[in-house]
Amino acid sequence: MTEPAKPRRGPGRPRQDEAEAGPGTQERIRLAAREVFAERGYDKTSVRGIAKVAGVDPALVHHYFGSKDDLFAAAIEVTMEPALVVPAIVGEGPEGIGERLARYFLGIWENPVTRAPMLAVVRSALTHEAAAAVLRRLVLRRVLERVAADLDVPDPTFRAELAASHMIGIALLRYVVQVEPLASADPEDIVVLVAPTLQRYLTEE
Amino acid sequence: MTEPAKPRRGPGRPRQDEAEAGPGTQERIRLAAREVFAERGYDKTSVRGIAKVAGVDPALVHHYFGSKDDLFAAAIEVTMEPALVVPAIVGEGPEGIGERLARYFLGIWENPVTRAPMLAVVRSALTHEAAAAVLRRLVLRRVLERVAADLDVPDPTFRAELAASHMIGIALLRYVVQVEPLASADPEDIVVLVAPTLQRYLTEE
Repeated sequence: MTEPAKPRRGPGRPRQDEAEAGPGTQERIRLAAREVFAERGYDKTSVRGIAKVAGVDPALVHHYFGSKDDLFAAAIEVTMEPALVVPAIVGEGPEGIGERLARYFLGIWENPVTRAPMLAVVRSALTHEAAAAVLRRLVLRRVLERVAADLDVPDPTFRAELAASHMIGIALLRYVVQVEPLASADPEDIVVLVAPTLQRYLTEE
Repeated sequence: MTEPAKPRRGPGRPRQDEAEAGPGTQERIRLAAREVFAERGYDKTSVRGIAKVAGVDPALVHHYFGSKDDLFAAAIEVTMEPALVVPAIVGEGPEGIGERLARYFLGIWENPVTRAPMLAVVRSALTHEAAAAVLRRLVLRRVLERVAADLDVPDPTFRAELAASHMIGIALLRYVVQVEPLASADPEDIVVLVAPTLQRYLTEE
């Protein structure tokens, strides 16, 4: 996750007063977006509502982030942190990549702070095409394709998607539908069984 | 959407006349339920709306099926046909069970007639606890536990759920979010890669 270097200025300019300006503003808006999208879902979230939670003028939100879709992407991105995560998972080489991926993904869902926005993404993507498009673009393109780029297998993107599909399915059954015994299983027991699957998709012909 | 076969009747007591009685009525209601749940989702579906499509009095729907939840379960069940499917997948023994399961599941989703109610189930279950409860009870208990009952592995239900999570995740990414290349892949190419995963969960320690 990168911090904005400086607050930017631009068209339709909002007042840059004490409450609104400063290097933390953009980050505050992003965190507010994450919170509001997670709580209300994509459909019921408005830029105005996010601005209110962040304590800024809605024009400032548009100024920094553009459309509601862009803001949704930014809110997810702060959860996924692809720029940090992908090198950590892939960069250590093919050995153990399945286990690192499984542990990272479950870690996001085990932590209530990062689980909420993930839930919002998944729920929104199933019922709103705009949210599905964000999921496709951000999670699948920016995370999975980067993972795939380092794989030495045929059809690397297809295989990265199969790995992702398994992780997403586990998240649904464990955290949303909450089916037992999967819902109460120790995360490490899941990692032990699932890591070889991911490993096979990502590294074996 | 199919038109009701016969002219419909108004509110009030169900009259057991030609249009409403007979051995096909219950099945007609079930098919109407499947259609309406798939089209409108769990939340926006009413027993009254289903009765209208089936061309029967709402009281008759309640008489045969009880609550909206029960009707939802019946509508899904006709898609899954667990009584027929489970023996066909499991009964032939452990060899090839992963491939049979993958092919059966993709077959349901490849067929537009059975895909629609599956979509309705998955979407509903993510946003409505009542629908999630139906999914837990029917799909996971009645299908997965029957599959698990025949498995000779430790934690058979847990393993059956891991297999199911992978299939559900593939359905989401392929048919709902429609990420490429997974969305356009030949179903057999998916079966080839996924079958060994399911096989391992269901038969190997």
